[in-house]
Amino acid sequence: MSRENAQKAHKPRLAVPNSVVALNKVLRRDSHGKSKLENDFLAVEEPLEIRVQGRSVAVTMRTPGHDRELAAGFLLTEGIVRERRDVVGILHCRAAAAPENTLNVFLAPSLKVDFAQLTRHVFATSSCGLCGKASIESVHQHFPPVKSRVRVTPQTLRQLPKLMRKAQATFDQTGGLHAAAVFDAAGKLVVLREDVGRHNAVDKVIGHGFLEEEWPFDSHILLVSGRASFEILQKALAAQVPIICAVSAPSSLAVQFARESGQTLVGFLRGDTMNIYAGARRIRD
Amino acid sequence: MSRENAQKAHKPRLAVPNSVVALNKVLRRDSHGKSKLENDFLAVEEPLEIRVQGRSVAVTMRTPGHDRELAAGFLLTEGIVRERRDVVGILHCRAAAAPENTLNVFLAPSLKVDFAQLTRHVFATSSCGLCGKASIESVHQHFPPVKSRVRVTPQTLRQLPKLMRKAQATFDQTGGLHAAAVFDAAGKLVVLREDVGRHNAVDKVIGHGFLEEEWPFDSHILLVSGRASFEILQKALAAQVPIICAVSAPSSLAVQFARESGQTLVGFLRGDTMNIYAGARRIRD
Repeated sequence: MSRENAQKAHKPRLAVPNSVVALNKVLRRDSHGKSKLENDFLAVEEPLEIRVQGRSVAVTMRTPGHDRELAAGFLLTEGIVRERRDVVGILHCRAAAAPENTLNVFLAPSLKVDFAQLTRHVFATSSCGLCGKASIESVHQHFPPVKSRVRVTPQTLRQLPKLMRKAQATFDQTGGLHAAAVFDAAGKLVVLREDVGRHNAVDKVIGHGFLEEEWPFDSHILLVSGRASFEILQKALAAQVPIICAVSAPSSLAVQFARESGQTLVGFLRGDTMNIYAGARRIRD
Repeated sequence: MSRENAQKAHKPRLAVPNSVVALNKVLRRDSHGKSKLENDFLAVEEPLEIRVQGRSVAVTMRTPGHDRELAAGFLLTEGIVRERRDVVGILHCRAAAAPENTLNVFLAPSLKVDFAQLTRHVFATSSCGLCGKASIESVHQHFPPVKSRVRVTPQTLRQLPKLMRKAQATFDQTGGLHAAAVFDAAGKLVVLREDVGRHNAVDKVIGHGFLEEEWPFDSHILLVSGRASFEILQKALAAQVPIICAVSAPSSLAVQFARESGQTLVGFLRGDTMNIYAGARRIRD
């Protein structure tokens, strides 16, 4: 999150707490050493348990809302489901102590699920030698590199952070949410989601496309509000996204991943400038 | 990370890649639409596998360096080890395909480890009903609330972000690293660590204190460069840290956790202002 955005957060404009934003009292100390008890808004964080066929496979700390998308995006990016018909239904588990925080995913009976592998996180535990290269190869066994010939203009890319910020306007008073957004190649917003966890925000936009059958995102752009890590690039590849943009820096492994996966990776996309780390061929005036 | 810091990252000042910083070529596009191939520095991200008694219990994507601290901090904050003597040794696993990314932790033979619980992440999977309150109660079963009577002045707290930034100076050229630092009550820096993952940076500073027997951190301050989540507060409690400060926003559950754990939580600590969300009694002029 940018400093500018965070400063806005000091003076919340909205007064409507909901599942995403919680009202809170805070002792605000100003630069003259004066303290004042004020209203404040916080990003909501609550656990979500994802069950598959009744078995617990993951617990993630997330911002409530769009939970079915989160579950679907998680299972897709972990390589468990591939097609819309693989998911029969996603329901809150009424028998659980906190039904609103427990989802049960029902899969097509023909689908084989390796639970042992799933609960250990498929791609993080490559047995073929644990290094960056092995991690990338492990992902490629499930998700081949992208081949999309889509082209975008730098002008289109430059508009995206502004469009994302605008779509975020109701929520940015907390200063505590990551955002992920998917745009088409012309720069039109398809879906935006916010979450305290950036991987959750990405799972939600991917899960949205998957469940709503706006799918795959193979001529689309994924924009994340923060940094780009290996995990973000891996999730984008699972959704066949050819172009990934980040407002902040990528990691070394994110760049290596993008180059070996045929993805375009742009970092520090802000103002009128950008850094192109991989796949510059897709960006043309 | 702040915008200011990120902009520095556009013009790297150092030219010495190491395990933390990787040299990279980037196509930099300026505001006039001109592109230029330039040198760039990236934060290194590589997987680390943590094994306990030879069994794999976790894989995390981290920035190499201080890996023994990371492993020790992880095991401490997951409630597996409590005292320094519980850890007999932490060694790179020479038999592994990537020994530099594989650590084996040897524990005291008397210590009982529940591997099933450990690999599922102890505190995220409370069986007593999955909600914020249950998650906090689950943590309190292992780590009781803090009782420290330490006091700090607002003047001391205000200096901390500057001190952290200064200590980070060699690495901030990537714009891609989270930082965590522990200070004593007078504001003297005890230890600072950086990582692509903020939970890793916190595990490293905690692991440092634990391994070096500067322990516990029960009259200390933990400062994180980004936001404060449930996970950060839980890790701080495991190390008995009474005061937690964040440069950005806390989540709702972080605030609730701090209040129920007797911790002091300060957010938006920047410039001359701060927001005090919990435990204001420890902050006195």
